[in-house]
Amino acid sequence: MMQSIIATIDVVLLTIQDDRLCVVLSKRDKEPYANLDALPGGYIHAEEDRDSLDAAVRILQQKTSLIPPYLEQLRTFAGASRDPRGWSISVVYFALVNNDLIISSQQPGLTICPVDELRRLPFDHNEIIETAVDRIRNKSQYSSLPCYLAGETFTLPRLQKIYEACLGEGLNKVSFRRKMDELGVLEEIPGQTESGGAHRPAQVYGLKSEFKNQLKLLERGL
Amino acid sequence: MMQSIIATIDVVLLTIQDDRLCVVLSKRDKEPYANLDALPGGYIHAEEDRDSLDAAVRILQQKTSLIPPYLEQLRTFAGASRDPRGWSISVVYFALVNNDLIISSQQPGLTICPVDELRRLPFDHNEIIETAVDRIRNKSQYSSLPCYLAGETFTLPRLQKIYEACLGEGLNKVSFRRKMDELGVLEEIPGQTESGGAHRPAQVYGLKSEFKNQLKLLERGL
Repeated sequence: MMQSIIATIDVVLLTIQDDRLCVVLSKRDKEPYANLDALPGGYIHAEEDRDSLDAAVRILQQKTSLIPPYLEQLRTFAGASRDPRGWSISVVYFALVNNDLIISSQQPGLTICPVDELRRLPFDHNEIIETAVDRIRNKSQYSSLPCYLAGETFTLPRLQKIYEACLGEGLNKVSFRRKMDELGVLEEIPGQTESGGAHRPAQVYGLKSEFKNQLKLLERGL
Repeated sequence: MMQSIIATIDVVLLTIQDDRLCVVLSKRDKEPYANLDALPGGYIHAEEDRDSLDAAVRILQQKTSLIPPYLEQLRTFAGASRDPRGWSISVVYFALVNNDLIISSQQPGLTICPVDELRRLPFDHNEIIETAVDRIRNKSQYSSLPCYLAGETFTLPRLQKIYEACLGEGLNKVSFRRKMDELGVLEEIPGQTESGGAHRPAQVYGLKSEFKNQLKLLERGL
């Protein structure tokens, strides 16, 4: 008789708060590690989940009430020592969501924590988050990925701040705008501007509908 | 009582034969799909495998007698309908190996098949191989990955053919050599040349020892 293996899903849900890349943690309601903050996760339910993506969407909705605009498989973490219950597989997804949606969800038990200020988390969740941050940092170099963090509408200065938070470094304004033109995923929202304090009003943009669920890649990185 | 989930590993072992990117298939010795060619794979053994990478190395060695120089997690394929035995997770790795090693392993039951000439394979193995080919095509644009297919020593014309097989397109000789210089992973094998028919003898190269187990990335793609 083969020893049985635990099959779970974890989701790294990333957002921007105060211009910083943050991860959403959920207070665990069961042992092991009950009452500690950890990645939202749960068992795969063979009776109801059609596949692992299905399971990720279900679990994320149960734990955070959110259906994020972007969900991608990150990697699988599997081994004998990562979970005190036994040999376990966690198929990990990462998701991006605008901070306003998290706040308006009013789901109890959620914490939003900057990725560079995390304490020691249960399981291998620190390592998982590090892997997700590497992935988003890498993909932000040459894709429209950070746009999923920006909400329905945004100005270019705001989007630049989001790219900078994802990349962990500042960007030149002129070359950032050139790259956004080249990407071609944005459209002006007619007649909408936003006053930026001392600056002249900035044009408001949104994602073109065909790119709301599809990543666009740059030929050459930022 | 939760329905149990099958936990397996599959390995996409890629090689170059006759200047074409090929996948190594292994004849299945058990049901389902007994006697059909499929990706080398097997159950995770919770008692002996420390983690999924451990399991991949063990299974690959059992099925092909090979320890490949490069092994990376590709993606996990998991769902209710991919395996007739029930809800299953396959953590998939991809590996690259020089063709000479496969031939000298003399493992029975192996077939080497060009990736663009595959018949319908068991499970979702066609989809898995497609995902692996996409990954290698993408990574070959900006990394030393294809060098792992070239064996211990090789000439630059040979390495260019390998890159071309991975990319699925021809490359300009001058810019290819410039990119290889920029990568900086190769070293000349002193005093070794190879006569190339009508051409003058070509210098023989190998991977610098520090890059035998570590990928090097280009700032900008090929």
